[in-house]
Amino acid sequence: MQTKASQDKLWGGRFSEPTDSFVEAFTASVAFDRRLYRHDIQGSCAHARMLAKVGVLTTEECQRIVEGLEDILAQVERGAFEWSVSLEDVHMNVEARLIERIGDVGKKLHTGRSRNDQVATDIRLYLREAIDHLLLEIRRLQQGLLDLAEREAETVMPGFTHLQTAQPVTFGHHMMAWFEMLERDHDRLVDCRRRVNVLPLGSAALAGTPYPLDRHYTAELLGFERITDNSLDAVSDRDFAIEFCAAGALIMTHLSRFSEELILWASAQFGFVDLPDRFCTGSSIMPQKKNPDVPELVRGKSGRVNGNLIALLTLMKAQPLAYNKDNQEDKEPLFDTIDTLAGSLRAFADMVPHIQVRADAMAAATRRGFATATDLADYLVRKGMPFRDAHEVVGRAVRRGVETGRDLADMPLEELQGFADIIEADVHDVLTLEGSLAARDLHGGTAPRQVRLRIASARDRLARD
Amino acid sequence: MQTKASQDKLWGGRFSEPTDSFVEAFTASVAFDRRLYRHDIQGSCAHARMLAKVGVLTTEECQRIVEGLEDILAQVERGAFEWSVSLEDVHMNVEARLIERIGDVGKKLHTGRSRNDQVATDIRLYLREAIDHLLLEIRRLQQGLLDLAEREAETVMPGFTHLQTAQPVTFGHHMMAWFEMLERDHDRLVDCRRRVNVLPLGSAALAGTPYPLDRHYTAELLGFERITDNSLDAVSDRDFAIEFCAAGALIMTHLSRFSEELILWASAQFGFVDLPDRFCTGSSIMPQKKNPDVPELVRGKSGRVNGNLIALLTLMKAQPLAYNKDNQEDKEPLFDTIDTLAGSLRAFADMVPHIQVRADAMAAATRRGFATATDLADYLVRKGMPFRDAHEVVGRAVRRGVETGRDLADMPLEELQGFADIIEADVHDVLTLEGSLAARDLHGGTAPRQVRLRIASARDRLARD
Amino acid sequence: MQTKASQDKLWGGRFSEPTDSFVEAFTASVAFDRRLYRHDIQGSCAHARMLAKVGVLTTEECQRIVEGLEDILAQVERGAFEWSVSLEDVHMNVEARLIERIGDVGKKLHTGRSRNDQVATDIRLYLREAIDHLLLEIRRLQQGLLDLAEREAETVMPGFTHLQTAQPVTFGHHMMAWFEMLERDHDRLVDCRRRVNVLPLGSAALAGTPYPLDRHYTAELLGFERITDNSLDAVSDRDFAIEFCAAGALIMTHLSRFSEELILWASAQFGFVDLPDRFCTGSSIMPQKKNPDVPELVRGKSGRVNGNLIALLTLMKAQPLAYNKDNQEDKEPLFDTIDTLAGSLRAFADMVPHIQVRADAMAAATRRGFATATDLADYLVRKGMPFRDAHEVVGRAVRRGVETGRDLADMPLEELQGFADIIEADVHDVLTLEGSLAARDLHGGTAPRQVRLRIASARDRLARD
Amino acid sequence: MQTKASQDKLWGGRFSEPTDSFVEAFTASVAFDRRLYRHDIQGSCAHARMLAKVGVLTTEECQRIVEGLEDILAQVERGAFEWSVSLEDVHMNVEARLIERIGDVGKKLHTGRSRNDQVATDIRLYLREAIDHLLLEIRRLQQGLLDLAEREAETVMPGFTHLQTAQPVTFGHHMMAWFEMLERDHDRLVDCRRRVNVLPLGSAALAGTPYPLDRHYTAELLGFERITDNSLDAVSDRDFAIEFCAAGALIMTHLSRFSEELILWASAQFGFVDLPDRFCTGSSIMPQKKNPDVPELVRGKSGRVNGNLIALLTLMKAQPLAYNKDNQEDKEPLFDTIDTLAGSLRAFADMVPHIQVRADAMAAATRRGFATATDLADYLVRKGMPFRDAHEVVGRAVRRGVETGRDLADMPLEELQGFADIIEADVHDVLTLEGSLAARDLHGGTAPRQVRLRIASARDRLARD
Repeated sequence: MQTKASQDKLWGGRFSEPTDSFVEAFTASVAFDRRLYRHDIQGSCAHARMLAKVGVLTTEECQRIVEGLEDILAQVERGAFEWSVSLEDVHMNVEARLIERIGDVGKKLHTGRSRNDQVATDIRLYLREAIDHLLLEIRRLQQGLLDLAEREAETVMPGFTHLQTAQPVTFGHHMMAWFEMLERDHDRLVDCRRRVNVLPLGSAALAGTPYPLDRHYTAELLGFERITDNSLDAVSDRDFAIEFCAAGALIMTHLSRFSEELILWASAQFGFVDLPDRFCTGSSIMPQKKNPDVPELVRGKSGRVNGNLIALLTLMKAQPLAYNKDNQEDKEPLFDTIDTLAGSLRAFADMVPHIQVRADAMAAATRRGFATATDLADYLVRKGMPFRDAHEVVGRAVRRGVETGRDLADMPLEELQGFADIIEADVHDVLTLEGSLAARDLHGGTAPRQVRLRIASARDRLARD
Repeated sequence: MQTKASQDKLWGGRFSEPTDSFVEAFTASVAFDRRLYRHDIQGSCAHARMLAKVGVLTTEECQRIVEGLEDILAQVERGAFEWSVSLEDVHMNVEARLIERIGDVGKKLHTGRSRNDQVATDIRLYLREAIDHLLLEIRRLQQGLLDLAEREAETVMPGFTHLQTAQPVTFGHHMMAWFEMLERDHDRLVDCRRRVNVLPLGSAALAGTPYPLDRHYTAELLGFERITDNSLDAVSDRDFAIEFCAAGALIMTHLSRFSEELILWASAQFGFVDLPDRFCTGSSIMPQKKNPDVPELVRGKSGRVNGNLIALLTLMKAQPLAYNKDNQEDKEPLFDTIDTLAGSLRAFADMVPHIQVRADAMAAATRRGFATATDLADYLVRKGMPFRDAHEVVGRAVRRGVETGRDLADMPLEELQGFADIIEADVHDVLTLEGSLAARDLHGGTAPRQVRLRIASARDRLARD
Repeated sequence: MQTKASQDKLWGGRFSEPTDSFVEAFTASVAFDRRLYRHDIQGSCAHARMLAKVGVLTTEECQRIVEGLEDILAQVERGAFEWSVSLEDVHMNVEARLIERIGDVGKKLHTGRSRNDQVATDIRLYLREAIDHLLLEIRRLQQGLLDLAEREAETVMPGFTHLQTAQPVTFGHHMMAWFEMLERDHDRLVDCRRRVNVLPLGSAALAGTPYPLDRHYTAELLGFERITDNSLDAVSDRDFAIEFCAAGALIMTHLSRFSEELILWASAQFGFVDLPDRFCTGSSIMPQKKNPDVPELVRGKSGRVNGNLIALLTLMKAQPLAYNKDNQEDKEPLFDTIDTLAGSLRAFADMVPHIQVRADAMAAATRRGFATATDLADYLVRKGMPFRDAHEVVGRAVRRGVETGRDLADMPLEELQGFADIIEADVHDVLTLEGSLAARDLHGGTAPRQVRLRIASARDRLARD
Repeated sequence: MQTKASQDKLWGGRFSEPTDSFVEAFTASVAFDRRLYRHDIQGSCAHARMLAKVGVLTTEECQRIVEGLEDILAQVERGAFEWSVSLEDVHMNVEARLIERIGDVGKKLHTGRSRNDQVATDIRLYLREAIDHLLLEIRRLQQGLLDLAEREAETVMPGFTHLQTAQPVTFGHHMMAWFEMLERDHDRLVDCRRRVNVLPLGSAALAGTPYPLDRHYTAELLGFERITDNSLDAVSDRDFAIEFCAAGALIMTHLSRFSEELILWASAQFGFVDLPDRFCTGSSIMPQKKNPDVPELVRGKSGRVNGNLIALLTLMKAQPLAYNKDNQEDKEPLFDTIDTLAGSLRAFADMVPHIQVRADAMAAATRRGFATATDLADYLVRKGMPFRDAHEVVGRAVRRGVETGRDLADMPLEELQGFADIIEADVHDVLTLEGSLAARDLHGGTAPRQVRLRIASARDRLARD
């Protein structure tokens, strides 16, 4: 980036010496805020049109400004714009170029606004667009989960608690657990978007402006639902960025938990799934390795989003009103969170439909883990034994199973009756995996019928978007 | 707390040696989860009634259980309940006592549920009640701000950016900035409450249950709006606790910023406000000190809520489904966040109405800070000068003012005309504080008329709660 | 706790109204800082003795004070001390009681000190003792690891990267990895202790004191290595608490990684280890479960220490000098970190010696994972093939193995020669697990000989403590 | 960056389909790890020399490799190296280019190492150099503080607690408080450097290597003090990065507190200091503003370092051994922390010597704040009154002062005697600022004589570096 002489600075009037050159680079934000260029120009065009509507600019002045800005936009998009560090930020870079191109009329664009309300507007426009993209990616990943869940609605696998086999569940049911997490993530982003979608422009530096701006018109042009109600708050508020990063931290926490399971399931020890080669990488030293790189990387990336959230919370803690330079630090954590979410969701949405399930391995694992012990307890309860007593009885039977290396289903009736004489021949119906699954036929339960009902209901929900 | 012999443990059947006594204490949660006792009993009563409705319990069994639980509730509330560490948690303590009191029928209460869905239900009930309390406290603090803002709607003070005097604002306008922050906080808690208010009971350990539970009926008894859709997710989901702590971190960030300002304003150097003695404390060594302890402490307490949020995010990162013992660590950060919010909001709601404003000191500070320099620039723009040129002119005038120790309003017309000959006698109208304030008469601006409009609109909003 | 009338406050002179009763409870710290009582009294005794040495107190006054304090200590330790919230903190509680017991002479104890330097001294004394305890617990856990590593120095297991079998390692070697992490933890605590072990007393409120204190004498009495060099810094510095929590976060990160492995290894799918029953718990609904509760809980507890670290960093961010009330919030995160570390280290030190290794399962798993593929590559390199080409050759051989369900060691010589004709009959020596292990006979490598060398060297190091 | 066809991947042998192109970009690290190029080449040269020494390479092979690497280094430094995303990372990019340039002999460089130990070595080399740079910048800032402290060793200012005037201190004393914080920061980095400066190379992928490497020789060539003792730990250990970020978080916390004070002091309300224009910037809308941008930005930047620390702690939490892809996420937080520290320390080291002190304003503020109230209390104690009683007496006098708008020094003797009849004419000696300062003539106290002693001692310490 080019460094212009500091005396060109737009705020230089009061100063008796130019900015130190290291300080200039240290305090400049253009290296990272230039990614706002499109939204900055969008906001400026709307501001100019509004100024024309209320008579601060003539129609012709407005037209020259808007055309000038559109030229700059095109220039940036074809890579021909030269960014200058000494012009500090994206706003000054664009405005200085505008004045260069269209002359004095360009100086009128900043009437009735300040960089403080301008940058707040730019970030909100940028984040709103990012949220809309992320909402679509979440939906795409959810669709993949629904398809996979439907394909594997009857596939049995061990359900774990404490990473110990607990009860049989279906793979489809497990996929629907991920669907539910993402559904909450979607909800939270929608809620957050409402609080993002508010126009701060018109707050000027901190106190509002004496120009007769039509803020509702600007909001309409930019698609904002509301305008801010207090100028001091409007220029210093970064709640929306923090709320977004908190919602993002939860999304990454979910993907990290999902990743953990895929990594476990893809291990030789579990062997429950195969990930397609194109989502894996190899080893520079061990030729036999097929590493689940995508889930591992996503699991690791949850760290940076937690970090970004803390960065923003620390940033805002105890800042007095209104705008302080500290706030310049709001952008990088926000941008990094957006990028991380977009990349991670995309990788998962691309990968999930291609997960290959090893049904045999999962069924075999389920059979080895006393997964139907609870079913025996429930059987005893239905025969009239209090639950807590049934739990004791089954505990003793399991201990025998562990000692003799057999599942409950493999014990002869007489042996089972030794633990409780109310056990009858029908006990073996509840000790099968299929019997266990089918029995949990309650809203939210793992019975294949229930899973299909939930899938259908989810498809309806998504169709209504 | 009493330690019962480990062989009494309700899950002891499978084990060949008792729990190590240190391990027993280390893994027990009753020391902190006993505060859920009321909600645990509330949930158990609803579960029992539902079991009776679907025929798993007889009406009489249900009645004995409910009465037994109500006796226990009364016992806890009069401090007569003996908690046992070897019974691990609040659930086991209550259930063991119930069985002790009413015998074998008590063992039937746990039919069709597990501690996993039970604890998830208890926390949701507890948090829902806490949110309702916090929403009221936020409203109370907002009311105090509205009253203060109305009282001081015309009081001028310096508006700061970068802690440098920028433009005049009114004290009322500044108070309304805090009102706005709290309004968003209120919104976020309401959104969070929707996601809290969902019933997980019926998910059992992880897979649902074979008993014909009527989950909607239980939800109705407990006032839940919905029931969870996936049992694996329901027992392992702690999103709601994280979302609540994130919303709480923002509330504390706001109160911390508010505190920072009160501490500054109460300093001898600012001297803008007086805090009542009863919200301050003194020094053990310096008798002249009157320390703004409440704002300082609240500013400090923002740390623990950020910490709690990180504790929970770290906790959940990469946990495979479904329930793991790690989750026991969810409660203390959540409880601490609730307590911190309740205490801090209460202290502020109590204190704010009694803040004494030193209008003279604020007016004097405003007059010293070239606060109307922007007004001069806007004046020049209205006379036809492009904004950026006007900015340069005013910059030069301010530099003269700094050098000669005079505000712009104190410079004679001729001197001002030396900077720009389009300046006329009417310039002094815009250089007064009152003129500057009144000019910012735009939605969200600091003009007293606007502030009163916003107060009125806010009172309407609160009245509609 | 009892609430005394606020007018008794030791700093009440300047105030015209008593503290609000909620504010009194909200700002009091005695509920948590009373655990400093022993160190507070220890510091006060040393201060009194020093005051006597320099002539501010008479020998007799000093003696009465010290005896009074020792009585109070005894009273606290037998549970007979009544703590008062309205006396705010442990310091005021102890001092007020002292004055009550020994009269006016007790009022002289506070000469030349302030609560600011007093509390800084107390925390440093407390933390120093805690660090010494934790250092011993780390050593105890390391001893357990050394014994286990020695016992299993030849036991083969799969070494993982990306949770995929990479190369064979020994279980002893793996245990020594944990030993190394703990060794660094020990180092960091020792470094931290040096910065804790500095006396702030004599800094008074912030500026020092006009009394002719002998700070070096006080330091000597209390075992401090140095005295602080700047009074403003001394009363506001909490670096040592943050540094300790950061070291603690690393310890918990290590234990959390250790836990993750134990949980994986104890799963049915891995089946590498058995944890003793007394470190596990069962399920209230699934009688067959044996849950690795201790590692799960420790894994979860890493969250709260990360949270405590953030709480303290947030707390100190941007506080102006010197002492502010915010600092009262330093204690709970510090205490909680100490307790968490002590409990987690103890649980691990108790458990590790009793881990049962399933050598057969680990050997079988190693044989299934192409673990010696790298050995084949190295073999080819030794025969003259460039490493990168060898890597390609082995990759093709492994792909054949995956497709045909055989390990490299199971392929006949001719088949292997089909991939590279320089392969000879001696290839099968390097394809055995024993051959692979023995070959890595380099400092830090997994060869049993190397592991034994490292164990011996580690035992030497610990013996030198 | 160029994207090469994926089939060129060095680990492609085992795979049946090429990497997905988005996945390739998503998992590549070359965009950020290329900054390690110099240290990667440095490590490779040492590895090659060691391989030659032990006979794995011939002298001529070694020479060709080293020359090839040096050519690549020169090429990178003149900007002529084309980085390829499909070659994933800096290591593969350099190695592929080497093979391209010098042919098959280049393939021998990777003998006996893996990317896992290679990247661990590179990061340690990089971080060691960064720490050395930061240590120098800390010293430069400390020198500036010493000079400023000496210049202002007698300049009086109000010492604050709770941002309320407490006691007079000297500006020099205050500067020395910052010196002390930085001294601890220096210490911590030195301790951290010891743990960074250990060679992992020779650990290969995770288990060591069968080649007869001379690890001590490699360490010597690269200036490492020790070699790692356990290969599993060596490739997965990132403690040093976390420890560094924790030390960095404390440095930024200190600079953030320093910034907070400079911002307060540069406000119109305090008016204690002037910052030079070249470290400040102006406003785009308010021409009179001179904003303390550098301290504000540094205060804000403390957020990102706290965030980086959390990112790394979250990253490592619960990762099983040994290397996982998650670890790729270690670099960006580490690099960002280094950059932030380097920039912030530089800005402060450049700025501090040019801080202009307004001695008159500080003296006037001190006189207004009852700053010598403690001196009156100490006077009374010296006359025989118990400290706690003296505190009460002075409290009443201060209340009178507040009510009548006079400092204690302005009250006539008779009026003071009304509060305690032991007050005599000499009281006015202790009520002057000079008297108060001079009296605190204790190690660490604010008396100008003490401050000069501390400065001299600090200069000695720095001279011994």
